[in-house]
Amino acid sequence: MLSNNIWCVIMAGGSGTRFWPISTSKVPKQFQIVEGTDKTFIQTTKSRFDGLVPPERTIVVTNRKYVPQVRENLPDIPQENILAEPYSRDTAPCIAYAMYTILKRDPSAIMIVTPSDHLILGLEKFHKTISFLSEGLHEYDVLVTMGISPTRPDTNYGYIQVDGLPEEGTPIKVKTFTEKPDAELAKVFVSSGEFLWNSGIFIWRAATIRSEMEKYLPQLVSQFTGWEKAIGTPAEEEFIEKAYAGIEKISIDYGVMEHTDMAWTCPCTMGWYDVGTWESLYSVFPDTKKDADGNAVSAGAVMAQNSHDNIVISADKSKLVALCDLDGYVVVDTGSVLMVGPRNDKRLRDFTSGLLKKEYEKYR
Amino acid sequence: MLSNNIWCVIMAGGSGTRFWPISTSKVPKQFQIVEGTDKTFIQTTKSRFDGLVPPERTIVVTNRKYVPQVRENLPDIPQENILAEPYSRDTAPCIAYAMYTILKRDPSAIMIVTPSDHLILGLEKFHKTISFLSEGLHEYDVLVTMGISPTRPDTNYGYIQVDGLPEEGTPIKVKTFTEKPDAELAKVFVSSGEFLWNSGIFIWRAATIRSEMEKYLPQLVSQFTGWEKAIGTPAEEEFIEKAYAGIEKISIDYGVMEHTDMAWTCPCTMGWYDVGTWESLYSVFPDTKKDADGNAVSAGAVMAQNSHDNIVISADKSKLVALCDLDGYVVVDTGSVLMVGPRNDKRLRDFTSGLLKKEYEKYR
Repeated sequence: MLSNNIWCVIMAGGSGTRFWPISTSKVPKQFQIVEGTDKTFIQTTKSRFDGLVPPERTIVVTNRKYVPQVRENLPDIPQENILAEPYSRDTAPCIAYAMYTILKRDPSAIMIVTPSDHLILGLEKFHKTISFLSEGLHEYDVLVTMGISPTRPDTNYGYIQVDGLPEEGTPIKVKTFTEKPDAELAKVFVSSGEFLWNSGIFIWRAATIRSEMEKYLPQLVSQFTGWEKAIGTPAEEEFIEKAYAGIEKISIDYGVMEHTDMAWTCPCTMGWYDVGTWESLYSVFPDTKKDADGNAVSAGAVMAQNSHDNIVISADKSKLVALCDLDGYVVVDTGSVLMVGPRNDKRLRDFTSGLLKKEYEKYR
Repeated sequence: MLSNNIWCVIMAGGSGTRFWPISTSKVPKQFQIVEGTDKTFIQTTKSRFDGLVPPERTIVVTNRKYVPQVRENLPDIPQENILAEPYSRDTAPCIAYAMYTILKRDPSAIMIVTPSDHLILGLEKFHKTISFLSEGLHEYDVLVTMGISPTRPDTNYGYIQVDGLPEEGTPIKVKTFTEKPDAELAKVFVSSGEFLWNSGIFIWRAATIRSEMEKYLPQLVSQFTGWEKAIGTPAEEEFIEKAYAGIEKISIDYGVMEHTDMAWTCPCTMGWYDVGTWESLYSVFPDTKKDADGNAVSAGAVMAQNSHDNIVISADKSKLVALCDLDGYVVVDTGSVLMVGPRNDKRLRDFTSGLLKKEYEKYR
């Protein structure tokens, strides 16, 4: 176990738009089973901290409507550690809510903040680095984000620039943050050798992120005025409802990390996968579930001819999926939705935005 | 009504391989609903003869396993007019069985033989021509097949060569038959102006086709030795079982029409569609069921982007079909099978031959 002032915050408020139709607003990605396992993404995330942080120091922040699913997925998390957001307002408000909750219980707390829908396959390295960083923060007043050595010019990630990549596991000060660059810029970044991907996993002292939020997100902080009296009391729900009503959507990256002078990172090759895109889903598909033509298959019978590199997912395992002359597509049959589209994430993101139309509401 | 020695023979033994997965061995095409109507193909075929041939002079030949479906589809056809083949042996044995059945009841009979899964949209012309031809056969000893002026070099049809196309509705002697030519030959045929498509609708006297079968299909005919005593009696089933056991697959075109000196044809522009191919299904799809991008849709909700000229069929009308970047494909979801493949019939025919593998048996 890590020191008893080290807390884990699992951000689980995602509403399942990126992976539609597998992920829907009813069952977003964090509550979906990780392909090839019997655990959901949020269960996998929580178990990553088994032996490091106990359930009573694990906080889960989610949208109010997903509280029952969080309880079902993580039955050993105390009820008071599940924080219900009335609206989804991106990561900065979510982190603020968790921060005030933790501060009330332990002003000296160190927070490890993690998304609930990533995969980390190199658990040993992850444990080593997260232990080293969180324990180290007893002495340093910095905001650390774990960095990943980029393997391709992916335009779906945030990039962190440093002054020459340090050794694996060695923290270094951040020069700049760039969120989702275009393809050309991403290529330059990757080939320069000065950039890491932002894993979205943060480690900091609660007091440090608090002071930086007060500096860079005063409007957000002002919405939480009076938190000391409200949080952890019967008044909390109403307090949070009012606070969120006046909060704008903003990520912690845009809101704090890009501005602060205290941002550090630490490269860690821990087998990290965002799995926030079809491309990354394809890359984490177990080899045993890819056929000789590179089709990643989670379905019953498949009959394929001249079809390569597709993602084929069918909820009904008694169904035959027959593919002819199809390359690089996503074919998903959830039972209520059948989607056939290119494995190109930009295209599909653009496409699924069409779901906002009223007529498709029930399929979201 | 036509003269009371004119009979109609509906060939309904097709086993549903061409239109898989819509058409399956359980419910082949003749028992499927015609898109945009509430009638099945076989019902549409039978009703095409309403007012011309009464049910008691209508014979339906089908595979033994489809007898219940024929009864359900055509309840006014007398039971003794539904002929059950123990095995499917193509059109020549099917026609022989019908011919002997009719000869037993009326040696002077004239037979109109028709497939059960075609569409004819120009009913008036069809009625006029079929009446003219069948009544005309009281005086002529020829085998007539109705001809269709070709509109494209389709390689899925049989072609009939004549010595210069006559007026619409005028019979002419056939020079040659060519079944399913290759693309190049089909182009030459169409541009020559000397060819018609073979509609597969035949008109002849039972006695004439009998003598030509005796001449060109002696082995087949020999299998029916003793028909006079067996057909129409309790011995019929066993007799037919034995006869078919020794019969080889052969079509009436290969077996008789290509050899006989008595073949005639008659061009008739009657809005004929084989609908035996996805291309022809696409062409008969009602305009009201095609969207602005040319997608032929028989489904509930469809959300399409940059997707053109597809055939989209979903049995579950509450399901959303979402298509992105897909052109010229067939997307069919029957509930037990999802097929995505090119609208190219040759490709799909080749593809669905893969169904013969044991592992796909239950999906056929």
